Amino acid sequence: MTMRLNTSALLTDFYELTMVQGYYLTDKNPQVVFDMFFRRPPYNGGFTVFAGLSDLVDMLESIEFSQEDLEYLDSLKIFQPSFLDYLQNFRFSGDLYAIDEGAVVFPGEPLIRVHTSLIEAQIIESLLLNTINFQTLIATKAARTYCASRGGTILEFGLRRAQGIDGAISAARAAFIGGAAATSNTLAGKIFDIPVKGTMAHSWVMAFDSDEDAFQAYSDIYPDGSIFLIDTYDTLGSGIEGAIAIGRQMKKKGKNFGVRLDSGDLQYLSKQIRRRLDEAGLKDAFITASNELNEEIVYQLYSNGAPIDVWGVGTDLVTGGSDSSLTGVYKMAAKAENGKPVPTIKVSNNPEKTTNPGIKQVYRFFDADDTPLADLMTLEDEVPPKGGPVTFYHPMYEYKKVTLFEYDRCTPLLHSKMEKGKRSYPHKTLRELQQEAITEVDHIDETYKRIINPHIYKVSLSEKLKELKFSMVKSLT
Amino acid sequence: MTMRLNTSALLTDFYELTMVQGYYLTDKNPQVVFDMFFRRPPYNGGFTVFAGLSDLVDMLESIEFSQEDLEYLDSLKIFQPSFLDYLQNFRFSGDLYAIDEGAVVFPGEPLIRVHTSLIEAQIIESLLLNTINFQTLIATKAARTYCASRGGTILEFGLRRAQGIDGAISAARAAFIGGAAATSNTLAGKIFDIPVKGTMAHSWVMAFDSDEDAFQAYSDIYPDGSIFLIDTYDTLGSGIEGAIAIGRQMKKKGKNFGVRLDSGDLQYLSKQIRRRLDEAGLKDAFITASNELNEEIVYQLYSNGAPIDVWGVGTDLVTGGSDSSLTGVYKMAAKAENGKPVPTIKVSNNPEKTTNPGIKQVYRFFDADDTPLADLMTLEDEVPPKGGPVTFYHPMYEYKKVTLFEYDRCTPLLHSKMEKGKRSYPHKTLRELQQEAITEVDHIDETYKRIINPHIYKVSLSEKLKELKFSMVKSLT
Repeated sequence: MTMRLNTSALLTDFYELTMVQGYYLTDKNPQVVFDMFFRRPPYNGGFTVFAGLSDLVDMLESIEFSQEDLEYLDSLKIFQPSFLDYLQNFRFSGDLYAIDEGAVVFPGEPLIRVHTSLIEAQIIESLLLNTINFQTLIATKAARTYCASRGGTILEFGLRRAQGIDGAISAARAAFIGGAAATSNTLAGKIFDIPVKGTMAHSWVMAFDSDEDAFQAYSDIYPDGSIFLIDTYDTLGSGIEGAIAIGRQMKKKGKNFGVRLDSGDLQYLSKQIRRRLDEAGLKDAFITASNELNEEIVYQLYSNGAPIDVWGVGTDLVTGGSDSSLTGVYKMAAKAENGKPVPTIKVSNNPEKTTNPGIKQVYRFFDADDTPLADLMTLEDEVPPKGGPVTFYHPMYEYKKVTLFEYDRCTPLLHSKMEKGKRSYPHKTLRELQQEAITEVDHIDETYKRIINPHIYKVSLSEKLKELKFSMVKSLT
Repeated sequence: MTMRLNTSALLTDFYELTMVQGYYLTDKNPQVVFDMFFRRPPYNGGFTVFAGLSDLVDMLESIEFSQEDLEYLDSLKIFQPSFLDYLQNFRFSGDLYAIDEGAVVFPGEPLIRVHTSLIEAQIIESLLLNTINFQTLIATKAARTYCASRGGTILEFGLRRAQGIDGAISAARAAFIGGAAATSNTLAGKIFDIPVKGTMAHSWVMAFDSDEDAFQAYSDIYPDGSIFLIDTYDTLGSGIEGAIAIGRQMKKKGKNFGVRLDSGDLQYLSKQIRRRLDEAGLKDAFITASNELNEEIVYQLYSNGAPIDVWGVGTDLVTGGSDSSLTGVYKMAAKAENGKPVPTIKVSNNPEKTTNPGIKQVYRFFDADDTPLADLMTLEDEVPPKGGPVTFYHPMYEYKKVTLFEYDRCTPLLHSKMEKGKRSYPHKTLRELQQEAITEVDHIDETYKRIINPHIYKVSLSEKLKELKFSMVKSLT
């Protein structure tokens, strides 16, 4: 894949640069470990799909400050020449560990762990959060829609309502990972090798004298798989009649077609249209529906038996709808003192916001069906006892714990993704990432996939991590 | 300003290309006029700030299909060589009329009117909507926050939660137009010459032995205007005490400073902090507040007398929060037949979705105080009678009308912005656009600026346009 995100290290919050100059000038630049995690699942959902990692790694490999960037910073008259010289040679040279892109993840656990100098860690913060927060938000939205449609065909149609150009392109990428089958965004199709799909607009139908003429002209040019938009004038009249007339011609030539509903009551109309198509001997013709869909509406239509085969989802899929951001954060977990990493913690009045100290690993426990049971955060060098029992401690309430007496296997989730500033894992195609995401989503228990009011998946602390955390909390409060 | 959005004509919905090939092969490529407008104001608000136009014009001047783009389209095996040759030479060659960027606009009225061939009009649709929908959404959010704070200082802090890289950069641009005073996004600051601002993170405070040490180190490097983050450990204890200690030193040197609150009850804390600063003789020290703010929270804090001088607004400002898209649309209004433009209409079962036909102008009527009274859509060649009376017809209910007996002046809003594919108006700086937007917002009546349940501004049809619209509706239904 060609580099599409050719951004600058200047894409950072300004306070990072003022703080970093402070660290540089006062010679405070220890090696540190930062964790990226989120506290609340998007959409009040029961699972989250991690996305954006490969884009992030590509950018971290290449970001630097251009001469023009440095001149701009110099023009602000608060940066000293020695610091600007430092920035001129800035490259990200750290190590990065992360959960695999496409994995199902949960609140509180580190998705990414960065090992580098304090200055580098701060400069990359905004870029890291921007990339992961957004793509994870959208991959999760797609996966929810995929679940709501019971693995149906989702077309991502959101370009015109997306938040800017990259909002659209990154959303197409993330939506595909989360289970969308295709995008309408032609440029995204080219960049990522995602199937591009489209139907026709009402303006096409209006450019001809009738629905039937419009469909005829379209099928003359696109003789296979065309989707006729049947609601321009009269869905159950000229619309479906025109589609059936042209569809029969196509069937005679051994070709299939579909119809699209873009207005009206989709449950009622899809049932009527299915009946009409079936009566006309066009049982293979498929029904596409669109019009401000999201996972809740898709779920309701599916549950009510609407015979919709393909779901065109736009605005809500590419923006997240009413939940338009993932609130991922990036917090220091360890800092070198005399050359050795020492755990750090941020204690908050709000226990939810108190961080988990130290260099951590995340283990996922499975039963014999490969169904995930729970996740456990441990210190890096811990290995859970094989087969059990394992005690899981609540991350906020010291006294709460549960014991897993038996499990089939457990596996560490954080793996090396960059070493000394270079990618340490292979590029995957977007189709591979999608396949992995769908497999992960398919394997989690149904109760976590409820669209509304899902079961809460447990993410806990190991005994050693719990001891470390609460001893640090007590010494600080 | 340098070209920052170097995009491809391939950033278009795929159905545009399939339809356009159809028009090309069937030789249906008349001159057309398309209107871009929106139906519903974002945030259920009473006004909207139009933004994104200059970016759109820059992109329309430059978009084309690269050789690589054409090879990609060819690889899809549905485009014919003659059509790909056409695309190879594609440039946007049309005329574009629009309301001035930064203007206050209302639902239903054309913001942009495009005059070009059908093929060009379709190819640019997605790019046009993507750009205008998003920037208008965000400029409006900023203007609402500006109004809620009664013209206070708004800092845009949203980079880490924005929807992708361009989501962040375009949002910084639009938020500044809508009234934000500065951005934290350093790259956006460079590109647009927007002031960049930052304070410090909790990690800075934690890198030192105490709040006071951290503030001392910061003020040593940034001796003027530093903002101390005082809520890391104890806002009303070590936080404010450290800030006062260092702030007094700064005051002695004739410098000012501020404090930032990022957690807790902002109304209670800001009042306590103001009192402590005042008692310490630091009446000029300013208070900055942040923590998931939006215009409703800002309005409430301001109304309850919270002495906050500077508002750091992040996520909701750059994404729109729970209203994450503007539903702008782009509809054909006229089409050439035998060389003459003929009005077109799209009739919908939903009267709100029936379009207004013909080539239109929008007039805004003012009273003697320069307060806008109402907007009137007319046919292009109409001029409203000077001074009144003017009859305003409801766009949906044929029988509803009101008469404006007197007005001071009226002015057409749509002006030429591109001629034959080239910009026909001067570039403005972002500061100029912001000044115009703020002036526009300041001039509209307070009742339209209520954050909740605002007065609805009237956008009506002239008698001639009403006659045309309803005669066309009747002939088609």
